[in-house]
Amino acid sequence: MEVVILAAGQGKRMRSVLPKVLQPIAGRPMLAHVIGAARALDAARICVVYGHGGEVVRERLQDAALRWARQEPQLGTGHAVQQALPELSDGEMALVLYGDVPLIGAPTLRRLQAAAGGGKLALLTVELPDPTGYGRILRDAGGKVTRIVEEKDASAEQRRVREVNTGILVAPVARLRDWLGRIGNDNAQGEYYLTDIIGLAVAEGVEIVTVQPDAVWETLGVNSKPQLAELERIHQRNIAQRLMDAGVTVLDPARIDVRGELECGRDVEIDVGCVFEGNVELGDDVRVGANCVIRNARIGAGTRIAPFSHIEDTVTGRECVIGPYARTRPGTTLGDDVHLGNFVEVKNSAIADHSKANHLAYVGDADVGQRVNIGAGTITCNYDGANKFRTIIEDDVFIGSDTQLVAPVRVGRGATLGAGTTLTKDAPPEQLTVSRAKQITIAGWKRPVKKK
Amino acid sequence: MEVVILAAGQGKRMRSVLPKVLQPIAGRPMLAHVIGAARALDAARICVVYGHGGEVVRERLQDAALRWARQEPQLGTGHAVQQALPELSDGEMALVLYGDVPLIGAPTLRRLQAAAGGGKLALLTVELPDPTGYGRILRDAGGKVTRIVEEKDASAEQRRVREVNTGILVAPVARLRDWLGRIGNDNAQGEYYLTDIIGLAVAEGVEIVTVQPDAVWETLGVNSKPQLAELERIHQRNIAQRLMDAGVTVLDPARIDVRGELECGRDVEIDVGCVFEGNVELGDDVRVGANCVIRNARIGAGTRIAPFSHIEDTVTGRECVIGPYARTRPGTTLGDDVHLGNFVEVKNSAIADHSKANHLAYVGDADVGQRVNIGAGTITCNYDGANKFRTIIEDDVFIGSDTQLVAPVRVGRGATLGAGTTLTKDAPPEQLTVSRAKQITIAGWKRPVKKK
Amino acid sequence: MEVVILAAGQGKRMRSVLPKVLQPIAGRPMLAHVIGAARALDAARICVVYGHGGEVVRERLQDAALRWARQEPQLGTGHAVQQALPELSDGEMALVLYGDVPLIGAPTLRRLQAAAGGGKLALLTVELPDPTGYGRILRDAGGKVTRIVEEKDASAEQRRVREVNTGILVAPVARLRDWLGRIGNDNAQGEYYLTDIIGLAVAEGVEIVTVQPDAVWETLGVNSKPQLAELERIHQRNIAQRLMDAGVTVLDPARIDVRGELECGRDVEIDVGCVFEGNVELGDDVRVGANCVIRNARIGAGTRIAPFSHIEDTVTGRECVIGPYARTRPGTTLGDDVHLGNFVEVKNSAIADHSKANHLAYVGDADVGQRVNIGAGTITCNYDGANKFRTIIEDDVFIGSDTQLVAPVRVGRGATLGAGTTLTKDAPPEQLTVSRAKQITIAGWKRPVKKK
Repeated sequence: MEVVILAAGQGKRMRSVLPKVLQPIAGRPMLAHVIGAARALDAARICVVYGHGGEVVRERLQDAALRWARQEPQLGTGHAVQQALPELSDGEMALVLYGDVPLIGAPTLRRLQAAAGGGKLALLTVELPDPTGYGRILRDAGGKVTRIVEEKDASAEQRRVREVNTGILVAPVARLRDWLGRIGNDNAQGEYYLTDIIGLAVAEGVEIVTVQPDAVWETLGVNSKPQLAELERIHQRNIAQRLMDAGVTVLDPARIDVRGELECGRDVEIDVGCVFEGNVELGDDVRVGANCVIRNARIGAGTRIAPFSHIEDTVTGRECVIGPYARTRPGTTLGDDVHLGNFVEVKNSAIADHSKANHLAYVGDADVGQRVNIGAGTITCNYDGANKFRTIIEDDVFIGSDTQLVAPVRVGRGATLGAGTTLTKDAPPEQLTVSRAKQITIAGWKRPVKKK
Repeated sequence: MEVVILAAGQGKRMRSVLPKVLQPIAGRPMLAHVIGAARALDAARICVVYGHGGEVVRERLQDAALRWARQEPQLGTGHAVQQALPELSDGEMALVLYGDVPLIGAPTLRRLQAAAGGGKLALLTVELPDPTGYGRILRDAGGKVTRIVEEKDASAEQRRVREVNTGILVAPVARLRDWLGRIGNDNAQGEYYLTDIIGLAVAEGVEIVTVQPDAVWETLGVNSKPQLAELERIHQRNIAQRLMDAGVTVLDPARIDVRGELECGRDVEIDVGCVFEGNVELGDDVRVGANCVIRNARIGAGTRIAPFSHIEDTVTGRECVIGPYARTRPGTTLGDDVHLGNFVEVKNSAIADHSKANHLAYVGDADVGQRVNIGAGTITCNYDGANKFRTIIEDDVFIGSDTQLVAPVRVGRGATLGAGTTLTKDAPPEQLTVSRAKQITIAGWKRPVKKK
Repeated sequence: MEVVILAAGQGKRMRSVLPKVLQPIAGRPMLAHVIGAARALDAARICVVYGHGGEVVRERLQDAALRWARQEPQLGTGHAVQQALPELSDGEMALVLYGDVPLIGAPTLRRLQAAAGGGKLALLTVELPDPTGYGRILRDAGGKVTRIVEEKDASAEQRRVREVNTGILVAPVARLRDWLGRIGNDNAQGEYYLTDIIGLAVAEGVEIVTVQPDAVWETLGVNSKPQLAELERIHQRNIAQRLMDAGVTVLDPARIDVRGELECGRDVEIDVGCVFEGNVELGDDVRVGANCVIRNARIGAGTRIAPFSHIEDTVTGRECVIGPYARTRPGTTLGDDVHLGNFVEVKNSAIADHSKANHLAYVGDADVGQRVNIGAGTITCNYDGANKFRTIIEDDVFIGSDTQLVAPVRVGRGATLGAGTTLTKDAPPEQLTVSRAKQITIAGWKRPVKKK
């Protein structure tokens, strides 16, 4: 099968510089969702018909396997499919999808594809409680589709029909080529409508079969930001449902956002208000506290992430204790049983098993050994204004509070640094190193008084 | 037109010390919302009838243009309107509103006002799916209103009427004065009901016209905290809808709170869980991350605000990068391309273009030039226990980590401060300034051991 | 009355290592909720029938007053109740509850208990809009219950019955003993169904009375994580409703989580996204900002807690100002008018009236007097790698920024510590104490340049 995705619409009602099909659902362009569904069908070829903002669309998708057909000017859906015809082979079936109908699912499409077997025209239709505004499916006494009638042309009786056209269909490419050459644009908009091929198919006696989607929301289109938000919420609800079905405890399915892939082990618990982006893996028994943001991370089994943590491009071992208010930035690797506490930032650093930085610290460009205690207020001075350097802290080091490690610098195994030390040279192993001025008391000193 | 707002009720069911009409919706007293709707009608005079907690109400509203009428004791809605009569002119029409019906909209009221043209009595009525408890509108065969019947006095047939009285009406002041002088209090509560004027109007052949609101929720009253929360949510949903209609991408319309005015440029994106208070402007392409709180701020185009940021009384330039966990306090002004990172607090300070404070810092009462790098752990010591002083940091300064700037102090253009410096005197330009004790290692020192 | 709680099911669909009845609602095992409802009835004895993961269940409940009966193998609900019979007295009535029906309420159960008076069999039934899947209650022309028919055995007409069996019932123990000895397991599953006793009761002429629950959700069971989340949300909604009914202003009832007991004074306001755990008391006029987490705390009247604060095992006085981003850990006691600002952590410390730590500080194992000002970046070095020591800061002390207090250490009344001090010995009262290297400027120093 071959797939044509119509993605040329500007989407004026979105009131955005971005072309409509690039507006995101779950952090990915709507068009990428549709392409994903098409890919799941093992389509031989996927051709995207682009138009408005087309180059931006091609750039953003960055997908060498796609074919592209330009529609300029834009003269309707029939015209759009016609632009893709040079990319399609007459012996194949063609599936027509829409870049602004992002939640269409592969299982539904597989059923549609199967229904079209033997050269039939398969139409995805849907029963709506309120079909107002949609083209109605008309059938003869035997139940065969005879016509699609648009709202404005429908009689009162026809308007009572609740089965409507979604626009998604599968048809033989050769037929499609023939029909699209023959449809006209004799209508108010002066456009060529893909829907008009139904009349030609009926006239030629081509059998028209219909399939209903697994869920109505699969067929919803997006023309405005409120509709975008509506589909975002449906999509997130579905993700939450899948997580819960797999055994994840989600404290509030209406308050979790997954923008990418979230894989969870057994007995994972996710508290309210969390956001996951990119590829995130949570091991067995991981608990994520309220209001965390986690992006591209692999979190080891048994790890606890307390509220307000912000984890990014990070790998942790098992049984770590992270947060609240811990922030890990790209290149963070934690061993097992590592503790990161409040107001601690880690960047581009490896911290080995059983080490702790529990309060107010910045660990950047550092290699930290095992069983290291990083005191409150410790800062790795990794940047001299021009270059970045690494700090090496060997196993069993104890770093006193409010210490600055001016990189490049190495703290030897088992060393202790006194509180307030500015470490500019390597500290030898097993010793106490300190830089400290004498404590003095100024006799007769008077406190400042409030000026008037 | 003149407006009477009934605001004398205590609201016992609110279980609050605060008078009911001061209970907030979107951070403003309910009464202020109603006054806002009245103002939008260009009313000649607005008279608030107050009673319970009245002085508090007058103080909190702080509105010199309002007239006030005291109702004491409180003998019903008719009695309440009567207290306002001395403030009203006989030649005018009077609109009666309620301080605890906060979401009433000006467009609805304009239609009501227009309907009352020519000296008619215009009544705002609403069709409810379940009218239980409300006064029903009775009409004759010709559709003319003949009476309002209260729930308890209604026959079974009358109770089936779904059109109910909202209490909001427009009537000629002179008529109102006459009718209110004639209504009685011969009822279970011993109160004078405004509703009773309908009977008098019908008896005198005054035409009664009805208008329905644009939305049912406009007419909902608040008598309890659950109802307050319900209207808060309706109001917030409406705000989210308006933002989205204007092109803002709102990740979850059920999880945004706007308490004041939020103005957004093109392609603004607001993630889940954000709260906006006061006057906030977000420029084109601004992105606000999850769970931010922003109060009275103007955020320049292209600025990114990462999750958990708390922005208050702040103006930023373009393309700034703020957060996560950045906190700006009143008097913060940022130039273009300023970066504030995690656990950074800025107060009453101006930071010029391209400067950065990326980690764990307190910048208070400071003027920071362009291209300044403020190292992790830097603190401006702006307070000596009695007075506050300013810190001046000129262009191109590099401040090493964990530095204290004891104000008043100036760091000259291009200066570098070494890590851990306590700066008590001005630092000359282009030079390295440092206060640092020698790093020493204590031979033979033994680590403390765990006491039993 | 005696209570039997069936809690032996594994709950495979939960896909968890934890036995089903230990899965939490509002932070407590479902079984604990059911036991709580039983306790509220002053039951003479409560017997839990356990099976799968039984020892874990007993351990987690830690409840010496419970009786336990083991069901192994598990041969149906009738078989389960039979295991409890040795614990029950023939003269009593027995109430049968379910460990996976956690929201059952005591008022409903009291009505059920009352209905069973005089040795009747009282059945809790519920009318469902869609009864599909449930056993239907069949009645004779006089309205007497004659039978419960399971979905699969029901005729089309019987399936239209919307009154269904909840499984919860009260019956005389002696009768129960007799009936359970006589029911069979001649069904597809080969199980003994408690429901089968209804037929025996009818046959013997025992009167069967029915009671409906106060709310349908009281009878909902949990077999999967989506159902767990659904009941969690219902439960949280109910809690929010109760708080609001008591006068608390809850900004969004759909975004508050209470896992334990939350007691509020007058005019308390709780912003969106807050989580309360354990026992929390909020005094009059307390305001909790957005996205806070508060666990086991008593917050004094008039205290303001700003967004993103994380409060745990803490007691505060009146009129404190806390946050944003303040974090208090176990053992924190604050006096009146204490201010804790952003990125401040307090642990196992007492801070007396009018003292302030407004920025970036760690106060651990400290006793802080009145009117103390703790500067930004102050750190109590309470841990030497082996032992923890206390820091004593007396009244009226001013601690300059970025100071380290190396415990054990005492700062005398009225003392001032200079910025950047490392305090290793006691500081005398009323004097300035400082440890500071001389500020020097290095002539001719060149900035590092970017390496290629």
